[in-house]
Amino acid sequence: MQPAPWITYRPEIKVLDCTIRDGGLINNHQFTDDFVRAVYQTCVDAGIDYMEIGYKNSGRIFAPDKHGAWKYCKEDDVRRIVGDNPSNLKIAAMADAGKSDWKTDIIPKEKSVIDLIRVACYVHQTAEAVDMIKDAHQKGYEVSCNIMAISTVQDAEIDQALEVVAQTPADTVVVVDSFGALYSEQVAMLVEKYRKAGEGTGKEIGIHAHNNQELAFANTIEAIIRGANRVDATMAGIGRGAGNCSMELLLGFLRNPKFNIRPVWKLLQEHMPKIKEEVEWGPLPPYIVTGQMNQHPRSAMAWRASDDRDKCLDFYDKVMADV
Amino acid sequence: MQPAPWITYRPEIKVLDCTIRDGGLINNHQFTDDFVRAVYQTCVDAGIDYMEIGYKNSGRIFAPDKHGAWKYCKEDDVRRIVGDNPSNLKIAAMADAGKSDWKTDIIPKEKSVIDLIRVACYVHQTAEAVDMIKDAHQKGYEVSCNIMAISTVQDAEIDQALEVVAQTPADTVVVVDSFGALYSEQVAMLVEKYRKAGEGTGKEIGIHAHNNQELAFANTIEAIIRGANRVDATMAGIGRGAGNCSMELLLGFLRNPKFNIRPVWKLLQEHMPKIKEEVEWGPLPPYIVTGQMNQHPRSAMAWRASDDRDKCLDFYDKVMADV
Repeated sequence: MQPAPWITYRPEIKVLDCTIRDGGLINNHQFTDDFVRAVYQTCVDAGIDYMEIGYKNSGRIFAPDKHGAWKYCKEDDVRRIVGDNPSNLKIAAMADAGKSDWKTDIIPKEKSVIDLIRVACYVHQTAEAVDMIKDAHQKGYEVSCNIMAISTVQDAEIDQALEVVAQTPADTVVVVDSFGALYSEQVAMLVEKYRKAGEGTGKEIGIHAHNNQELAFANTIEAIIRGANRVDATMAGIGRGAGNCSMELLLGFLRNPKFNIRPVWKLLQEHMPKIKEEVEWGPLPPYIVTGQMNQHPRSAMAWRASDDRDKCLDFYDKVMADV
Repeated sequence: MQPAPWITYRPEIKVLDCTIRDGGLINNHQFTDDFVRAVYQTCVDAGIDYMEIGYKNSGRIFAPDKHGAWKYCKEDDVRRIVGDNPSNLKIAAMADAGKSDWKTDIIPKEKSVIDLIRVACYVHQTAEAVDMIKDAHQKGYEVSCNIMAISTVQDAEIDQALEVVAQTPADTVVVVDSFGALYSEQVAMLVEKYRKAGEGTGKEIGIHAHNNQELAFANTIEAIIRGANRVDATMAGIGRGAGNCSMELLLGFLRNPKFNIRPVWKLLQEHMPKIKEEVEWGPLPPYIVTGQMNQHPRSAMAWRASDDRDKCLDFYDKVMADV
């Protein structure tokens, strides 16, 4: 073992910014072009590897008059921000099983400035996810598979999903702690499980953490220690409910000199105060409670939108009564 | 190894609340009796093992007209809150090497409602700390030794301090991450180092974490996994600068049924909004920067008190220019 591994780095580690994609879950993806462009430039300047600019989801399911462009990531909208993307930053978009018209809406890679399609599914949607992975791969994209909400499914179900996904051309499989419920020991076991399931396939393991228990950054570190080479973060930790692993924390930990934290502080100073006036995220008490109870944060989000928002005891009592 | 250790518990683990002691560093310990009494009652109701009610520090060094009672913890003041303390909760107070008149101000245990004296020192004050430990032990107290700011001293210095402290009657030696600079791998190594140094002495290892990098709770978990049985936390994470490990997070993790999280949510709902109007703490950008740079948070505290408080890029540039 190295005497002080925290000051060295593993060149294989790549960082994905999902500020617009996950942050957009708070405001129906209604960010201004100015902000999306600022995040793009920040990612380029900071040496970040991927920027997930939104979802490739269905306009039939999500009404276009109620959602911003980043719910759909049409080619013209993406190019309005990144042009032909003359940078080393790769562009990613997420497609949800059950919520996307992936056969038609994901166009061949040679016509798109998007580089990576991240297929998101629940375990019971693994079959559709496999079709989506194959489709995106055949169309020429790099592909990732994000199996969501794994803290609420049985080990055997995860094993089954991983066995199937291992046979697909997905480049990465991501450990997703949707509810911010996992402790480090669980993250360690899951990364190990994903690693074993993908052995010999060349697949990388990713980590996507939520911050309900103030563990998003810590669990990301734990996943890295256990071998994950694909890590998600967002500017100022913006994201649904409690938010995600903060980019400013992550880049402070990663020692690869290709990363530069200063552009992130610049974005936070120049753009985040306005965003924070409009939307709320962070490890607030109701999100802590749902994280501890391993529940979807929707009840906590509703509570924070109500007049009782600061009554954390009342929320705790409600959750415990409903268990 | 256990298949799911995060749902079991180790009965040896004891929790110390340092809300008033560490939180008081933000407001010169000028809490109302009403709040201190509420924290006391919360600790009793929540099954917490120790409440650190403040410092036993010198009235010569800290002007009594500028500091509240909890900077000194005179016997009458403590008894005004806890009476004869007819509960299972033990009362603790911290005495700083170099800042306390411990020979006279710490009275014999049989005359005091305080149970535990926590001796705090920097490594270069180890010699005085040893005298303080012996003194408090002879007076009849349980004694802990908190060596501060270890993230900035040489390994050999820590080894030397631990070798000396191992020969004292201190019951506990606490790993203290004063600057919120440590990552989990460092915490693991330090707990192991402290454990080895105390081998055969029966001393317990403690952990006191700061939240600059949102790692206070995670590092506390890591220390527990590595064998620490004495853990510090505060209500809502209140504490100097970025604050401490939050009690509401910690009690959600600990599975010993003697702990009860509900009184903590009650305190947070009924008393914390007022406190938050008066003082500020949390992993705000300037504290992240000093944590990443392994610096004392004093420059970040000054920045947050200035008109430039929200200019995180300017603070980053200042810190980097001054390195």
